Amino acid sequence: MATPAQDLKPWEALRERIADDDRDGAEAVLAKLPPEETVRVLFRLSSEDQQRLLALMPPDEAADLLHEFPDQLAADLIDHLDTEAAAHIVDELPSDDVADILGSLDRAHAEAILGSMDPEAAGEVRELIDYPTDVAGGVMELEHFAYPETIRQRDFIRDVRARRKEIEQLPARLLLLDSLGRPSGAVHIEDVLLANPDSPLGTVAEPVVTLPVTADLDVLEDYFDEYETPGVPIVDDGGRLVGRVRRQDLQEALAERASSDQLKVQGIVSGEELRAMPLVSRSRRRLSWLSVNIVLNIIAASVIAMFQDTLAAVIALAVFLPIVSDMSGCSGNQAVAVSMRELTLGIVKPRDVLRVWWQEVSVGLINGAALGTLLAVAAYLWQGNAALGAVVGLALGINTIVAVSIGGCVPLLLKHFKVDPAVASGPILTTVTDMCGFFLVLGIATLSLPYLIA
Amino acid sequence: MATPAQDLKPWEALRERIADDDRDGAEAVLAKLPPEETVRVLFRLSSEDQQRLLALMPPDEAADLLHEFPDQLAADLIDHLDTEAAAHIVDELPSDDVADILGSLDRAHAEAILGSMDPEAAGEVRELIDYPTDVAGGVMELEHFAYPETIRQRDFIRDVRARRKEIEQLPARLLLLDSLGRPSGAVHIEDVLLANPDSPLGTVAEPVVTLPVTADLDVLEDYFDEYETPGVPIVDDGGRLVGRVRRQDLQEALAERASSDQLKVQGIVSGEELRAMPLVSRSRRRLSWLSVNIVLNIIAASVIAMFQDTLAAVIALAVFLPIVSDMSGCSGNQAVAVSMRELTLGIVKPRDVLRVWWQEVSVGLINGAALGTLLAVAAYLWQGNAALGAVVGLALGINTIVAVSIGGCVPLLLKHFKVDPAVASGPILTTVTDMCGFFLVLGIATLSLPYLIA
Repeated sequence: MATPAQDLKPWEALRERIADDDRDGAEAVLAKLPPEETVRVLFRLSSEDQQRLLALMPPDEAADLLHEFPDQLAADLIDHLDTEAAAHIVDELPSDDVADILGSLDRAHAEAILGSMDPEAAGEVRELIDYPTDVAGGVMELEHFAYPETIRQRDFIRDVRARRKEIEQLPARLLLLDSLGRPSGAVHIEDVLLANPDSPLGTVAEPVVTLPVTADLDVLEDYFDEYETPGVPIVDDGGRLVGRVRRQDLQEALAERASSDQLKVQGIVSGEELRAMPLVSRSRRRLSWLSVNIVLNIIAASVIAMFQDTLAAVIALAVFLPIVSDMSGCSGNQAVAVSMRELTLGIVKPRDVLRVWWQEVSVGLINGAALGTLLAVAAYLWQGNAALGAVVGLALGINTIVAVSIGGCVPLLLKHFKVDPAVASGPILTTVTDMCGFFLVLGIATLSLPYLIA
Repeated sequence: MATPAQDLKPWEALRERIADDDRDGAEAVLAKLPPEETVRVLFRLSSEDQQRLLALMPPDEAADLLHEFPDQLAADLIDHLDTEAAAHIVDELPSDDVADILGSLDRAHAEAILGSMDPEAAGEVRELIDYPTDVAGGVMELEHFAYPETIRQRDFIRDVRARRKEIEQLPARLLLLDSLGRPSGAVHIEDVLLANPDSPLGTVAEPVVTLPVTADLDVLEDYFDEYETPGVPIVDDGGRLVGRVRRQDLQEALAERASSDQLKVQGIVSGEELRAMPLVSRSRRRLSWLSVNIVLNIIAASVIAMFQDTLAAVIALAVFLPIVSDMSGCSGNQAVAVSMRELTLGIVKPRDVLRVWWQEVSVGLINGAALGTLLAVAAYLWQGNAALGAVVGLALGINTIVAVSIGGCVPLLLKHFKVDPAVASGPILTTVTDMCGFFLVLGIATLSLPYLIA
């Protein structure tokens, strides 16, 4: 008999219930958790226990739990369940979520699970699984609510009454299809309410705008900016209705894109690390970026090696090398951040690069002068050597202008060449600004050596 | 007579129309633009021209244009219009947007504009304007669709018919209020469809969950995670209905919070810079952060000054100081990124700091060993001095562990002390890792000086 749950941390209690294959006990522990604690507790379990818990729960509750995990981890969990159990659980999820999950498993296993799923659901998933996640086809849900334009109001209401239980909510506008399944119009629910019971709903329909499965997130965003509707019908090449993208699905997809961009900027290239992942994979994810970075760093620092005599003559310079490179990196990153944001908002396009460059130079002149002066004074106060102050201040001033120019323009250029600006801007920027910064400090110092050692 | 538009860039054409106070011409130019170009073209205009354009357009179209600008700039534009014009334009916007805009003007001017607005709309805005943007009151819209629980289906349908034009869409669930205006239940539209024409809708209602105006974004997020409903009714202290937060409003608020966090991380502390802003304000925004940073940098670099003799003895060390500090900064930032993400997902809470620390140390050991070895080999190949390789490799290895420990834990600690982790993590991290990195390289070098110069 296990210790009563109240003496234990919830995840400890949960572990015991799982160990005892005690479904009711596990459900009881989970039921007692405040909603915002659930995910934290689940992540305290080993992935083995997480899998056992999912297998233990009734499929619908397992599906709810699975929903708490980020897509990637959800996929890992499903990947480790036996095919039957996995199929029963994903059968409880909407087809678009299932497509996201199965899409990241190897194809053979995905097919095995699809094979054991409810055939209709499996068919829907197969339709979705091949769409990339950044187009309408990858974001849409296949559960759409549409009727033939020829249906009479009376029959519609009878049908809705019959399907009460399965209809989660009635859309504000009812989509109508022509005989070929192409959206031909939409009727506001209140118009349905008020329509003549015996007239086909098509007679009170308004025109409706659709988007192709291939429309990308930006096109979808423009659509929702333009129209107030909560969702947009998605059609195939033949103009036939295949699904629906809801405003919130788009918002979520855009938020995901933003956060993965952010992770890329911060150097977790493969993105999406969670500490629940195996140690090796976590450290590999990070090393993949760090090892590139250390090579770039060594290249940049090799500039210093070229000037060892100058350094030997004026050791104090060594103190300022990291300051100049760090500060220029900061200034450059600020410019990168603004360019990324203006690209996202659509305020600038790659072809605006010259304009952006000029706008950055103007800021760079001011900030370079300010920072350069600050550093020059600091250097002078510390070493009582005006020439030293002049050298490091001038170097920082110039390098600030270089940094903001690169930082402002590189994202636009990368975007132009279809490289992801989020991931590539940082490394390019810091390497160049470091090299340039070291070169400026030590180069100017070499030229003015007589004054420095005077 | 102006040159025909097709010979000009759209913004040039637009400037001319504005200069000629040619409303129709301006409308024509804007009408010809593809939706995704509008914002870019608007940002090509001087803020003076933007103001004149808004004043020139009919209020409803001006409101649409205003909608293209980020809140802050929209506020600046309104701020510079004369009160009458401003009032007519914001009268066309939903009250929550107006509250955001007027909320960032000085109170006197906001009141002046409110005074010239449609009194009812102005009243709604006054209700909203004092709520911070990160609670339900700041995100909610006052336009809610509710009826007394006593209304009969027949009368409801008659009323909906009468209000056809103003009702944009019927919610899937109809909210019902008791005699005190407190939400008492909700009825699915299909239930309304099917209800007895003469029975009060309250008789077919289901219970409904509400949230207080003071609920913060995380509480709202938990609500929408738990319930499928497209919106949540917001109530005041008395439990009376005051507004409604739609899922998409929350999504947008969360996305905004995320992107402003990202800007903070990248050192635009006051966030939200756009190059359309005046040069001085742009450079001040950036300097506010850079000047803090340069001081921190100087403090960190002062460690180097303490070891000038060692540096003088082994000049080659100067090459490795920036490498060690940059690399440790990278490792630390990766840990910060993961902690920020896990905090957002609710996977970790501040009280998990020890666990997080241990998980970071384990990654730090692996990555530190890998990077340290890499750098040691590079140093040896370059200088043919094994001791030098050992020194810098060891220093980088240890400092990597320090960096990931700080990077992983600091965001949790800051969150615990109610400081915004996004803005403060970076500077703390880099300063400490820089100081520590310099100290390790030069300290270990000093101890092993005999081997280095052997």
